[in-house]
Amino acid sequence: MKQKVVIIGGVAAGPKITAKLLRTKDFDCTIDLYTDENLISYSACGLPYYIEGLISNSEKLIVRRPEQFEQQGANIHLNKKCTKILPEEHKIIIQDTTTKETFEVEYDKLAITTGARPIIPSIPNIGLKNIFTIRTLQDGINIRKKMLESKHAVILGGGYIGIELLEAFHANKIHTVMIERENHILSIFDPEISDMIAQQITQMGEGSIEIITSDAITAFEGNGKVERVITQSGRTIETDMVIIAAGIRPNTEIAAEAGIELGVSGAIRVNNRMQTSKKDIYAAGDCTENFHLVSRNYTWIPLGSTANKQGRCAAINISGKYDAFPGILGSAVTRFGKLSISLTGLSETEAKKFGFDVITSTMTKKDKAGYMPNAEDITLKLVVDRRLKKILGAQAFGGGDADKRVNTVASAILAEQTVDEFLHLDMTYAPPFSTAVDPLLSAALLINNQMYNV
Amino acid sequence: MKQKVVIIGGVAAGPKITAKLLRTKDFDCTIDLYTDENLISYSACGLPYYIEGLISNSEKLIVRRPEQFEQQGANIHLNKKCTKILPEEHKIIIQDTTTKETFEVEYDKLAITTGARPIIPSIPNIGLKNIFTIRTLQDGINIRKKMLESKHAVILGGGYIGIELLEAFHANKIHTVMIERENHILSIFDPEISDMIAQQITQMGEGSIEIITSDAITAFEGNGKVERVITQSGRTIETDMVIIAAGIRPNTEIAAEAGIELGVSGAIRVNNRMQTSKKDIYAAGDCTENFHLVSRNYTWIPLGSTANKQGRCAAINISGKYDAFPGILGSAVTRFGKLSISLTGLSETEAKKFGFDVITSTMTKKDKAGYMPNAEDITLKLVVDRRLKKILGAQAFGGGDADKRVNTVASAILAEQTVDEFLHLDMTYAPPFSTAVDPLLSAALLINNQMYNV
Repeated sequence: MKQKVVIIGGVAAGPKITAKLLRTKDFDCTIDLYTDENLISYSACGLPYYIEGLISNSEKLIVRRPEQFEQQGANIHLNKKCTKILPEEHKIIIQDTTTKETFEVEYDKLAITTGARPIIPSIPNIGLKNIFTIRTLQDGINIRKKMLESKHAVILGGGYIGIELLEAFHANKIHTVMIERENHILSIFDPEISDMIAQQITQMGEGSIEIITSDAITAFEGNGKVERVITQSGRTIETDMVIIAAGIRPNTEIAAEAGIELGVSGAIRVNNRMQTSKKDIYAAGDCTENFHLVSRNYTWIPLGSTANKQGRCAAINISGKYDAFPGILGSAVTRFGKLSISLTGLSETEAKKFGFDVITSTMTKKDKAGYMPNAEDITLKLVVDRRLKKILGAQAFGGGDADKRVNTVASAILAEQTVDEFLHLDMTYAPPFSTAVDPLLSAALLINNQMYNV
Repeated sequence: MKQKVVIIGGVAAGPKITAKLLRTKDFDCTIDLYTDENLISYSACGLPYYIEGLISNSEKLIVRRPEQFEQQGANIHLNKKCTKILPEEHKIIIQDTTTKETFEVEYDKLAITTGARPIIPSIPNIGLKNIFTIRTLQDGINIRKKMLESKHAVILGGGYIGIELLEAFHANKIHTVMIERENHILSIFDPEISDMIAQQITQMGEGSIEIITSDAITAFEGNGKVERVITQSGRTIETDMVIIAAGIRPNTEIAAEAGIELGVSGAIRVNNRMQTSKKDIYAAGDCTENFHLVSRNYTWIPLGSTANKQGRCAAINISGKYDAFPGILGSAVTRFGKLSISLTGLSETEAKKFGFDVITSTMTKKDKAGYMPNAEDITLKLVVDRRLKKILGAQAFGGGDADKRVNTVASAILAEQTVDEFLHLDMTYAPPFSTAVDPLLSAALLINNQMYNV
């Protein structure tokens, strides 16, 4: 008997589940995907590069079109919002966002992939024109349009998206002020690393970038459209536009109302088969909580790479086979111009918070043989458990491919390697690619030198 | 009592031992390094890039000058060749290469770091002018000088150095013919991968590169200087110069004469502390044999990265402390222009030769989000043990940083991870750095799909 698979949410995990189920030959099912947006399967992560002008057309960010799925046999329902889940009845309520009409949809298996949405702080006059959030393709189009006629911009929030927007605005010669509430931008990094990154970005900004930390916007002012922001510390900053990039929160209200268990983060709790607490209901992507393999705690780190893995896992389990998604390492990367900024596992700050006694090393070294043209500095910090010697995390930034070194450490962390084992890693070497002792191994050797006094 | 440490050989491992001993505070020793060359500590791996013209001055390839070591307290003896080792007497015989005088040197600890030298095939007229080998800085200078007045070149040998010279010559608009005896260039790769690489290089050569396989040079011809080469298949190739890059062999004659055990490869057998079969004699670098961590066989893969690791290990053990070098994965990288070419572990061919039953996957995919400018194809091949599911090797080439993906696999191989574990690797993702599912994970997923029919 055909199984009715219903998916709610269409950005990353939902389309991934659809695509994987369509490729599953021995599972007889109908697939219906409902989304409240007017398109599906787009790369939200690509929006800053569209705004920058590196991608000629926003359409290029669309990974798969509804028609492609429809041709393969899935039913894609645009502008249809799920307003209620009825787990006992195996039904959901869908509202047409245009006509406002509602109807019921039955499912045998339901996948919740409702993602996340920007946090909008309650600041007076936040409704003024030219104050944007960034999540959908249309947001990107609106921001780029306004940017092209602007000279000054303010970015609220110094996280990954804030940094990527800073690159976009700087490349378009917009004078930009970033305002971050915390003491440091990129506060997921250790403070001294964040500071080095902020310093380099400011330098690369050549006078057109200002990064303000430990401050907040207390009001927007302007005549119909935003003209200036007022900060807690008393500054007035004239601006043509503002981007709110102050974080996101999971879209889990309908799941919670249906009695589906949420985690401490407010995202949906799933087991390693992506099953929620309710029978036949799966969840994947930004709306779910993650098990962090190093801290061994539940956390919420919404990322496109995780959404894809979880989508695949959910699809396999929905089809009656077995697949497990054990958890995450929190690996992430962003960039400002040629500066790549990346981390995996736990920072020193986080590791200490979770009770680890750590030993660390920080190494700045060329990413390739010093005599090669374009050799660039990479700074790497390793965090290691002092007793067990397991690698807990790595942070890196630099002009070279710092992020790829972080992936190599991530592989060692996944395998629970000790730094003693890891420093024997046979890394590829040729002058255009690394130094004879790669910066990563140098950082590991520094720890070895300390531990054994050699 | 001061220990007399004597080191013979001065390119990579020897200087590394010297540098590490100089940093060792609690070991009281004298350090005497003897080399038959007129300089030490240079990057032989950088020679192709000097020849290409990417490095303005050959001096830049010198990592450390004798004076630097002398100032720190080591004694560097240039143009002094070790002609004999007397293990029982703890002495060596040194000959001054200029005066030909010989003298004895006593040691408490001896390190053999004599490296390797090019194999010179016995081909008629190989003594003609403008036929070069490449190993020393002077070789590089001579080749570049001749190249600048040449229009045609022949490279004998399609290994890593051959490919790097091909890049150098092509960048200088020299019409170049590469002649390889085996069926494929880069024969350490699987044949279908080598063929794809050869095809791409030929295409990128735009008519000025010819790669000939399954052929050999049977004679050189010319009036005092080389003017043409004759091949086994009967071809006559006009040329202004020839580079012999047909492999290298370890410099182990004096070690063998002294009764020091060599391995099957003809390189010096060492244990994991870099000790040879003779008391108080250590060896490191290109003159030593390696334990391959995947095949669990002894092999000889001379690389600068390994020489550095072994040098550090030897120095720590010479100083009376403990360090172990467990072995290698055979990781290596080369490039032709923007094409990086890299591998780690075993190829399918090698794995089968060592008796493994394997499952493989080959994946070609963009190295970054397809909509980003400069997204480039990467081709990755994974080799996995069918029964134990451990990853045995990876091969990669492409316009992107294929080599860094190989390092990430190397880390998993070192940790003896299964492909089931590895595919949960949380790799960093942002559009300028990778795809949401990195090519490496796609290759692992392909194997998972096959194994579990999902």
